[in-house]
Amino acid sequence: MASFGCNSEPHSDSVSPFNINPLDPQEFRRQGHLIIDFLADYYQNVSNYPVLSKVEPGYLPKSLPISAPLNPEPIETILQDVKEHIIPGLTHWQSPNFFAYFSATSSTASFLGEMLSTGFNVVGFSWMASPAATELESLVMDWLGEILKLPKTFLFSGNGGGVLQGTTCEAILCTIVAARDQKLCQIAQIAGINPKNFRSIKTTKSNSFGLYPDSLESTIQMDIENGLVPLFLCATVGTTSTTGVDPLGPLCDVAKDYGLWVHVDSAYAGSACICPEFRHFIDGVEGADSFSFNAHKWLLTNLDCCCLWVKDPSALIKSLSTYPEFLRNKASDSNKVVDYKDWQISLSWKFRALKLWLVLRSYGVNNLRNFVRKHVKMAKTFEELVCLDKRFEVVVPRNFAMVCFRISLSAIANMYDHSDKHVCEDCANELNRELLDSINASGVVYMSHAMVEGVYVIRCAIGATLTEEQHVLMAWKVVQEHADAIAK
Amino acid sequence: MASFGCNSEPHSDSVSPFNINPLDPQEFRRQGHLIIDFLADYYQNVSNYPVLSKVEPGYLPKSLPISAPLNPEPIETILQDVKEHIIPGLTHWQSPNFFAYFSATSSTASFLGEMLSTGFNVVGFSWMASPAATELESLVMDWLGEILKLPKTFLFSGNGGGVLQGTTCEAILCTIVAARDQKLCQIAQIAGINPKNFRSIKTTKSNSFGLYPDSLESTIQMDIENGLVPLFLCATVGTTSTTGVDPLGPLCDVAKDYGLWVHVDSAYAGSACICPEFRHFIDGVEGADSFSFNAHKWLLTNLDCCCLWVKDPSALIKSLSTYPEFLRNKASDSNKVVDYKDWQISLSWKFRALKLWLVLRSYGVNNLRNFVRKHVKMAKTFEELVCLDKRFEVVVPRNFAMVCFRISLSAIANMYDHSDKHVCEDCANELNRELLDSINASGVVYMSHAMVEGVYVIRCAIGATLTEEQHVLMAWKVVQEHADAIAK
Repeated sequence: MASFGCNSEPHSDSVSPFNINPLDPQEFRRQGHLIIDFLADYYQNVSNYPVLSKVEPGYLPKSLPISAPLNPEPIETILQDVKEHIIPGLTHWQSPNFFAYFSATSSTASFLGEMLSTGFNVVGFSWMASPAATELESLVMDWLGEILKLPKTFLFSGNGGGVLQGTTCEAILCTIVAARDQKLCQIAQIAGINPKNFRSIKTTKSNSFGLYPDSLESTIQMDIENGLVPLFLCATVGTTSTTGVDPLGPLCDVAKDYGLWVHVDSAYAGSACICPEFRHFIDGVEGADSFSFNAHKWLLTNLDCCCLWVKDPSALIKSLSTYPEFLRNKASDSNKVVDYKDWQISLSWKFRALKLWLVLRSYGVNNLRNFVRKHVKMAKTFEELVCLDKRFEVVVPRNFAMVCFRISLSAIANMYDHSDKHVCEDCANELNRELLDSINASGVVYMSHAMVEGVYVIRCAIGATLTEEQHVLMAWKVVQEHADAIAK
Repeated sequence: MASFGCNSEPHSDSVSPFNINPLDPQEFRRQGHLIIDFLADYYQNVSNYPVLSKVEPGYLPKSLPISAPLNPEPIETILQDVKEHIIPGLTHWQSPNFFAYFSATSSTASFLGEMLSTGFNVVGFSWMASPAATELESLVMDWLGEILKLPKTFLFSGNGGGVLQGTTCEAILCTIVAARDQKLCQIAQIAGINPKNFRSIKTTKSNSFGLYPDSLESTIQMDIENGLVPLFLCATVGTTSTTGVDPLGPLCDVAKDYGLWVHVDSAYAGSACICPEFRHFIDGVEGADSFSFNAHKWLLTNLDCCCLWVKDPSALIKSLSTYPEFLRNKASDSNKVVDYKDWQISLSWKFRALKLWLVLRSYGVNNLRNFVRKHVKMAKTFEELVCLDKRFEVVVPRNFAMVCFRISLSAIANMYDHSDKHVCEDCANELNRELLDSINASGVVYMSHAMVEGVYVIRCAIGATLTEEQHVLMAWKVVQEHADAIAK
């Protein structure tokens, strides 16, 4: 397997530095205290505001700039806008005079818990992604089940279990698909499409793991010949395993011929596309129907915040809309407003725009670009270090700020002094797995892995807010030391 | 239409008072500053912690009490537990030495935005539920689309539009159902079940809008005769329109005979069931398969936080599990841990348990019970006031802290001095609609409405954290004044 690496992007060395620390403890402290005081004052005065907002549709774009600032704005300016333009557009759910719908009670304790959760900003997926998050949730759900005197069969202690979901919409959706699948013995999955009817189309290293339009077309044709109706293509810009990039233009052309909806999932790499020099990775998106990326991954925005755009909102709304009598109101009836409940699963959605707005204003687009560039530059440095150590190879070309590397086959052949290539591939996988386990067990750095065409690779994804060059150099040193130890 | 009202719950007058203000500005300020300093210190030291947590499965229940405290604990004690027991169980995603998966960058600005969003705690559903939330989201999504140089067809300014979702999982699910429905012209809905195959079973006032088991059974039988396979019953405890309660026991018995999954949706009323005197409303839940309620509605927990329990987690997991290679790890392979990603739609889920844990500990179960009781008591007061004014009637019996009332038919007959009953029902609806519009336009209080057997009722839902008796008395005064004005 050939090794890649040391490729270069235009501009990446000549960019302005990113000198802001978005988690600087002193600034965090100062601004945090400011917002606490602001909110304490808000609670003090909340009963004085008109409880139902009196603004007219379209009031806000008239008061705020139509583009994000290139340069940072101070929090004091932003707070002034919150006072003048956001608060008048709020319906004050925390007002003591709110008697509509059902209340959304809140409290200092919950606010503090949310602060801690947001502050730690751990991503829960598996238990190991943060054991405390899972274990505290299981514990608290048993506590609460006990207070409700739920039958023990619903609790972990009785082989059931509890989970926190965002909203009831999600809870019902999850249980209804469980019910359906239990009945149908797994003939359908969450969107009501039989898992058998999902196609994972093979990509290859020779094409840097981008999806070939020809492979897409032949897959579509085969399905049509079998009487199926292809309807959705999820193209990816920046895959999880290798940050591979699908060629959007040619894929959209094929999809268009067959009437497929094209969604572009750019969860990780979308943030990089705010830089002119990386924007080309989503060239061709004009042929797609929808595009999403996660500001909570690489754009300094705390979990959760996935940005989704669609060309035809009415298609979303047709599928997701609900309009029961108790929600009817003149503004919705007028069709002059966006009702975001019809754009997502949850009826009760969170005011997430505030954090994204604060990020864009507080740092400014220029700094956000430099933030991304800084990570890409550090990844380049890491990649160069891998290239300099003959025991290692970069396994797939780096596109963004993630480097896929491993102890190379030839190094292992030398180490074990044998030449059976097949045995060697297995050896290599085993050895690299051992290396990663040993690195991670140290607690000093944390990397992850992927399998790429049968090859176990170590993924070094550079992108934490606080990561500086020193941490990257140290990370490489840790890799080398653990490789030394394993070689012995 | 007969009028109800003035029914009484046992204990509800003799309960201990709830004397804590969970949004007391001084305490909010003091504790908020404490957590800001705590988190600033955390960021200062985050690189000193082992980046990958070293705890073993099951470490947490060994260190923390197995039941929620009855009485409040001070934040200082809780923070000590966070330091000693939670932080060691965190994988530090904000550490500069985190190079695994993709980073979840966070920032002071985003944290502040999340604080503001959490602090305002508005519930976005329709535009009018808080116009600023919708308009800022549309604005920011156009900003960001512009920075990404997305084609104008994706922006609101080009008749497309952007929306913030929690995670990519949600974004993909929403777009895939849109794609499917576009193709199938609306033959299936979000869970892949044809909307035609959902049954809304009629309930009546004579049964206080609880679902009759007989109606359920005859509906099931009719479906079976038509070759359909009934699979899911969503029973409700505390419906949105009237807080009606379905009789769980008899319904579960019917469902069991036909092998249906029973989900109990107690989104609003579940919180009340932490009080022994209200627990009977969910009697029979032992026959159900799943149960959920929203701590973010009436249990002092900020949005979003829906608590879901299931008896058979493996049924959820079978439908929702994903386990790609890059997430594989020994703990998951061991089957000794809960992986909550398989219990919900999103892979990247938030550490929500922290806020619920803080609520339970900071207030204690006793206070949470009294909090609910206080609202119920205030609702009873409001209901009594309605009964005392001969122009009004309570339209459906009050179960919890929501009163459904209207200007009565007889009052309207007097007002217009005619006796055509049908004209009069329409008149009554029109007049009550006018009354509510006029009340809400005042900005002084905010109530909502429902349609109940063709009758327009005004819903006064008492439950905001800051609502005290004075606000309820004032609300009734506002209703009376606006009724006076309309009568003229």
